[in-house]
Amino acid sequence: MAQKPSIPKGTRDFTPVEMARRNYIFDTIREVFSLYGFRQIETPSLENLSTLMGKYGEEGDKLLFKILDSGDFLRGVDPALIEAGDCPRLAAQLCEKGLRYDLTVPFARFVVMHRQELQFPFKRYQIQPVWRADRPQKGRYREFYQCDADVIGSTSLVNEIELLGLIAEVMKRLKINVTIKLNNRKVLAGIAELIGEPDKIIDITVAIDKIDKIGLDKVNEELASKGIGDEAISRLTPIITIGGTTAQRLEQLGELLAASETGSKGVEELQTVLAGAMRMGLGEMVELDVSLARGLNYYTGTIIEVKARDVEIGSITGGGRYDNLTGVFGMPDVSGVGISFGADRIYDVLNALDLYPATITTATKILFLNLGEAEEVRSMEYLMAVRAAGIPAEIYPDRTKMKKQMNYANAMAAPYVGIVGESELAEGKLTLKNMSTGEQKVVTIEEAIKELA
Amino acid sequence: MAQKPSIPKGTRDFTPVEMARRNYIFDTIREVFSLYGFRQIETPSLENLSTLMGKYGEEGDKLLFKILDSGDFLRGVDPALIEAGDCPRLAAQLCEKGLRYDLTVPFARFVVMHRQELQFPFKRYQIQPVWRADRPQKGRYREFYQCDADVIGSTSLVNEIELLGLIAEVMKRLKINVTIKLNNRKVLAGIAELIGEPDKIIDITVAIDKIDKIGLDKVNEELASKGIGDEAISRLTPIITIGGTTAQRLEQLGELLAASETGSKGVEELQTVLAGAMRMGLGEMVELDVSLARGLNYYTGTIIEVKARDVEIGSITGGGRYDNLTGVFGMPDVSGVGISFGADRIYDVLNALDLYPATITTATKILFLNLGEAEEVRSMEYLMAVRAAGIPAEIYPDRTKMKKQMNYANAMAAPYVGIVGESELAEGKLTLKNMSTGEQKVVTIEEAIKELA
Repeated sequence: MAQKPSIPKGTRDFTPVEMARRNYIFDTIREVFSLYGFRQIETPSLENLSTLMGKYGEEGDKLLFKILDSGDFLRGVDPALIEAGDCPRLAAQLCEKGLRYDLTVPFARFVVMHRQELQFPFKRYQIQPVWRADRPQKGRYREFYQCDADVIGSTSLVNEIELLGLIAEVMKRLKINVTIKLNNRKVLAGIAELIGEPDKIIDITVAIDKIDKIGLDKVNEELASKGIGDEAISRLTPIITIGGTTAQRLEQLGELLAASETGSKGVEELQTVLAGAMRMGLGEMVELDVSLARGLNYYTGTIIEVKARDVEIGSITGGGRYDNLTGVFGMPDVSGVGISFGADRIYDVLNALDLYPATITTATKILFLNLGEAEEVRSMEYLMAVRAAGIPAEIYPDRTKMKKQMNYANAMAAPYVGIVGESELAEGKLTLKNMSTGEQKVVTIEEAIKELA
Repeated sequence: MAQKPSIPKGTRDFTPVEMARRNYIFDTIREVFSLYGFRQIETPSLENLSTLMGKYGEEGDKLLFKILDSGDFLRGVDPALIEAGDCPRLAAQLCEKGLRYDLTVPFARFVVMHRQELQFPFKRYQIQPVWRADRPQKGRYREFYQCDADVIGSTSLVNEIELLGLIAEVMKRLKINVTIKLNNRKVLAGIAELIGEPDKIIDITVAIDKIDKIGLDKVNEELASKGIGDEAISRLTPIITIGGTTAQRLEQLGELLAASETGSKGVEELQTVLAGAMRMGLGEMVELDVSLARGLNYYTGTIIEVKARDVEIGSITGGGRYDNLTGVFGMPDVSGVGISFGADRIYDVLNALDLYPATITTATKILFLNLGEAEEVRSMEYLMAVRAAGIPAEIYPDRTKMKKQMNYANAMAAPYVGIVGESELAEGKLTLKNMSTGEQKVVTIEEAIKELA
């Protein structure tokens, strides 16, 4: 009996038109990665669960897609776990492998396994899908692409500046107006230190992160509710309400944090990175955002987040510096800095603003009609000549009614149709029809190729 | 405690050099697919197991990677199955989704789900990984890429001819000498009919398939052991030992199969396809192979198999015509013809014969050294100018010893190194060092870009 097919929720098919658009995004990112000297790697979709588990927190462990072992997967499984219905621990016995959850952990694993072959600093990029057993919702998928670039084995801030240039170049090519928000983990640490609550940095930054949404009063309420004293809160206020240009705000921040060695270091790093960005002409695009607090458990220096200016959507790119990428795999002290382009959100932005160039098309340049046996043979000769000139071309395979073939040409958005009928056959020519103007003329194949090229 | 990381057996990491080589293959195939008017689609890695199960035979079902359901996967599981240790049936209750096993079944599912949006004939290509829980061995992986092109909704043999042209173009661009072997399922059916054993077609073709390896006598022995009578075997002998050119052999085959309507139809189809291939100049490459019997349960007309001439390796591309792609999903009578490039075997062939063009490289064109603070600033200006000209370039991020930086340039195989030291800084120039000749000269950035371009 025939079954009505479907696909798992949170996953998508991509039609030719969607693929052309996605390829435009991926190709643009890939080209800029390469222009900036990053080298591509790929890792397997399947990783050992021992590599993945415990790297994304307890919540992350639950969101890993786990692969049921092949064959007799019940062998060696503890019956007590089945009895108790202990699914998490049972899963660990039933499954040895899981699907990649992000590109960072596999990259860390890659670096450790290939350390002898790699030259440091190692600049790698990686564009591959990742999988998360998240609750699917608008704009959130269970299978989606990440596009990551990282430089590891170098502490130089030149890398941060280079990554800002790279982001700006990608966004310029995609015609997306963006703001690149910058912060530094050390500044946040300095703030926590200064107000005498170094242990509460997470609470503080989570609250600061909300300032744009809920305002200062509510942030202060939230800080108080976390047990942060009035004095600390009042010391915090001038910091999170600094005004002026990015350069001015950085200067004030430097003064406010002068007593904190870590905080001062953070301000200094930000100043270096900003100066580099200014020299690259990115001054208008880059701004300091002290409330930026992403990836706090992970980042140790620069924090980067990119927002599209003309669409309401979350961050479309983000990244930062980390100090211990590979420690968990036995290779300590590997510092690096990386960014990740959110291809799916960028796709949504380009769709929302209709930013695709007109040249993106799935269509061949010319479709030859198929009007009879001898005509087909001649058309296929012409077809090969057109392709030999590097021009995508096809022939309608069946000798059906001309109207049906023209409908196909229209549906495929073919810019030209080539027609070889009886008279063209006799003349050694073809009729070349321009599908947008409707104009048609009888030409030699050489003339046709000249027009198509 | 740090863990020593590993990857699941049968999977691979790809380093930058390997990626550059693989991209060369994929890009070549993609470009030719596009030149021939095929349009790209992608489907999710995860499919519902109901889509996948039963499509690849009992053995295939076992080789599917199944995803353990999230959350409380024991709910609703029949305890008797656990008791009995019935892993196959238990897997079906524990898992709703599985990883794509090939590109054909997902494509069929795609066509049925998107039938309203698609224009037929639909020419699609798809380049994605597939997963099989096979026993890993040399050249066989658990995760590998397939590169498929299919035309569906057209019975015209123009499609077969086009696919032969496409294969030849890909192999020409990759510089692989190939033989394209052709057969037709109807010819095989005609043979079985003619010798009076229409039910034994599988046995017959399996035996015929071995003729190159074990010779006629052993094939006949095998046929006899399958219960095929002496008379049938003696009628078969002239067919499988036909000599001469492909055209001659086809003519003889036509005579021998004249009594079989199906067989004659098969010969006629082969003659049409061969005539088309000859017109495209592929006569030397294409040959009839009556022992070719791949995908018998699936193919209904043309059968195609491509062998590399200069390397001992299995078929590197294959395909054929089928008549019922989507029937199992409730959409009958969809005829099509397709081919699949074996990217991993093609990779092995190119490696074995060292066929990669010298222009394939992972390196940037120029690495700027980093010799001091002011020098770094100037070098980064030059760097941006070089990139603005579309030339991949990078700067060594750290201000370390020059020797270390030159070692890096060598390891990266950078063709040029750009040096801005004190004197270059004063002169407003840079030293451009050609790393293969060792030659170095002091030039302006404009002169450098001219040389690099």
